[in-house]
Amino acid sequence: MARIVMKFGGTSVADLSRIHNVARHVKREVDAGNQVAVVVSAMSGKTNELVGWVQETPKVAGASMPLYDAREYDAVVASGEQVTSGLLAIALQSMGVHARSWQGWQIPIKTDGAHGAARILDIDGSFLIRRFEEGQVAVVAGFQGIAPDNRISTLGRGGSDTSAVAIAAAVKADRCDIYTDVDGVYTTDPRIEPKARRLAKISFEEMLEMASLGAKVLQVRSVELAMVHKVRTFVRSSFDDPDAPGMGDLLNPPGTLICDEDEIVEQQVVTGIAYAKDEAQISLRRVADRPGVAAGIFLPLAEANINVDMIVQNISEDGKSTDMTFTVPNGDVAKALAVLDQVRKDVGFDVVQHEDGMSKVSVIGIGMRSHAGVAATAFKALADKAINIRAITTSEIKISILIDGPYTELAVRTLHSVYGLDKH
Amino acid sequence: MARIVMKFGGTSVADLSRIHNVARHVKREVDAGNQVAVVVSAMSGKTNELVGWVQETPKVAGASMPLYDAREYDAVVASGEQVTSGLLAIALQSMGVHARSWQGWQIPIKTDGAHGAARILDIDGSFLIRRFEEGQVAVVAGFQGIAPDNRISTLGRGGSDTSAVAIAAAVKADRCDIYTDVDGVYTTDPRIEPKARRLAKISFEEMLEMASLGAKVLQVRSVELAMVHKVRTFVRSSFDDPDAPGMGDLLNPPGTLICDEDEIVEQQVVTGIAYAKDEAQISLRRVADRPGVAAGIFLPLAEANINVDMIVQNISEDGKSTDMTFTVPNGDVAKALAVLDQVRKDVGFDVVQHEDGMSKVSVIGIGMRSHAGVAATAFKALADKAINIRAITTSEIKISILIDGPYTELAVRTLHSVYGLDKH
Repeated sequence: MARIVMKFGGTSVADLSRIHNVARHVKREVDAGNQVAVVVSAMSGKTNELVGWVQETPKVAGASMPLYDAREYDAVVASGEQVTSGLLAIALQSMGVHARSWQGWQIPIKTDGAHGAARILDIDGSFLIRRFEEGQVAVVAGFQGIAPDNRISTLGRGGSDTSAVAIAAAVKADRCDIYTDVDGVYTTDPRIEPKARRLAKISFEEMLEMASLGAKVLQVRSVELAMVHKVRTFVRSSFDDPDAPGMGDLLNPPGTLICDEDEIVEQQVVTGIAYAKDEAQISLRRVADRPGVAAGIFLPLAEANINVDMIVQNISEDGKSTDMTFTVPNGDVAKALAVLDQVRKDVGFDVVQHEDGMSKVSVIGIGMRSHAGVAATAFKALADKAINIRAITTSEIKISILIDGPYTELAVRTLHSVYGLDKH
Repeated sequence: MARIVMKFGGTSVADLSRIHNVARHVKREVDAGNQVAVVVSAMSGKTNELVGWVQETPKVAGASMPLYDAREYDAVVASGEQVTSGLLAIALQSMGVHARSWQGWQIPIKTDGAHGAARILDIDGSFLIRRFEEGQVAVVAGFQGIAPDNRISTLGRGGSDTSAVAIAAAVKADRCDIYTDVDGVYTTDPRIEPKARRLAKISFEEMLEMASLGAKVLQVRSVELAMVHKVRTFVRSSFDDPDAPGMGDLLNPPGTLICDEDEIVEQQVVTGIAYAKDEAQISLRRVADRPGVAAGIFLPLAEANINVDMIVQNISEDGKSTDMTFTVPNGDVAKALAVLDQVRKDVGFDVVQHEDGMSKVSVIGIGMRSHAGVAATAFKALADKAINIRAITTSEIKISILIDGPYTELAVRTLHSVYGLDKH
């Protein structure tokens, strides 16, 4: 017997037939004698519909600014998960499973007061553990909690992943299964490289890099939370036949296990290749070389809500000042240049160059900490294909390389191959 | 300054444009210096969609019986009002009105545990009065409350009217305005008699008879509640221009006031003509004339959920037993006959006759208590048009007459005219 939290996203509960399919997955785990809590998202499309209404209402009411109150956003948008939780409870009951829906305010899932983007502060697991002891499957509305003002809060888009991991931590679950529309985490995007392989295991740290770099399988916050609480998290497909062989395997169900690196016995040097398109490169020349200069540039950009990604600093040609290069999303270039224009005199720099249509390709692997030459292999492989490198940043487990956009697919396939990721 | 509860039904909040219109009605009352609570239904069609999903889920899940859990029904269906309350709060805020949405569990609106058809047990008005004192318009999700099991409960279809009246009673409101898609209560159905006039006032008792007899303006329970707590209730149209002259009149806004009969100075003998179609008449002959016979017949019918309406008992032709006639909806005839067949031997009666396609026409007026001859006038007027009377029941303020269905419109117009209701 194990204690399992199962999470199903929007496409997995898109209609009543899909909800029935989810119920079959749940029943399989219950019939195997496990204690089960289920976390559900809104039916696919519902959240967008509700958010659309919230955004349109001020305009229809003739407001001069299209602003809306985050507390009311939360009350409206959280209703999507409420509906799914009730319907899944009914589906389970119809199949003879003792089930009951629970909203964030009932458990309670306590969050901070940042309505619209709240963080979970506390879940007292005892409420759900009592449900387990009654033999009940607790169907929990994801994405939401209750704020200190006694109002519904929501966790931000994709927050149901975070709900699931937080609940798994609170009840000390043996496993947190994130059912989604892909069957696991791949060595790279299979749409680009058909030889991409599903990983059996990936470490939390690697997953964090993969997720934030564009492998949009899991919300980044949920992975951080899983890492902190060491929640063994499986990414698996809700589209698999619930009763296919091996689906109920307690230790090795089909999918990718995200876990502590200690659990990964045979570590690969490189685990995966991620990429992010539509980046723009901005370069500042002859930046004054004194303390506080970087803050003087990047604080105003952050305050303007511009998401700066790679940052590279070099010595300038004149040897007395520095060059600074960073990337922002294509759509933020104009805003970024306007901010830079304002701070130019105070900070002191000369030429602003910018170019959009770039891509960032990243090599990720916890094993590279103990292996030299990983970066050099990447550079040589790209050079062999005449792919120009615009900028490089590195961390302990990641090498990110900025290249011209049109070379993205070639670069991904080249790196995937050079590290042997296409071989079993 | 007055304290006003405003209630808007599904067609009044059908889309964002209609919600904006509702906000204009609310703003008018706020600008006039009134304290305002608003009660909203789900956007028109939403409740049906949610109920449909609840009913379909067990079938899709392959349940042998299409049953669903009333607690889960409540969690799913109550989400409709939650959405409207948030959107209306945003619309009001966009127009500069300090507003906030509140769900049943937050106030709380305490109900009994009859999920799906709960009754309001208690609303502590102090929560809403504090909101008024803060200058806040409280936008309350109608139709719902919280049951003793700490779960959402719903009040049954049309329950938002009851929410509004209960809240008006709890905060001791000066007025409860029920905004709907008609602009008041009429002397009869204007689709049948174009000369029907809107009543300025109608007593609670008369409204109860009008509502239960088919003038579907207000939920019967809400009228009962208004009568008990003497809540002055206006029925008015949300489709009127919110800023038309007189809309903000504190004492006499356009619409019909439902009030204590003491407030109605010039009582008419007859206030209105109601009707109900698709009734069936069932007659039992030579029913044994001993105590307990009526209970022996009508208890089993009630247990079979058959809604018996008119009941008439006469002495039989043989002078030793009684004849019993009653009406049920057309659709319940077969079920009623099956029940009667089971109890026939125990109770003792001979012939069961039944005929469907009947209509009940009712003359309602609190003034008839002090006026003789009201019933005789009706009988003569119908006889003059050769309309055959199948059965008659009377109460203090109502005469109901069962006739053949095809004569319904003629009978309604005849009675409307004979009591002078078509004259100003």
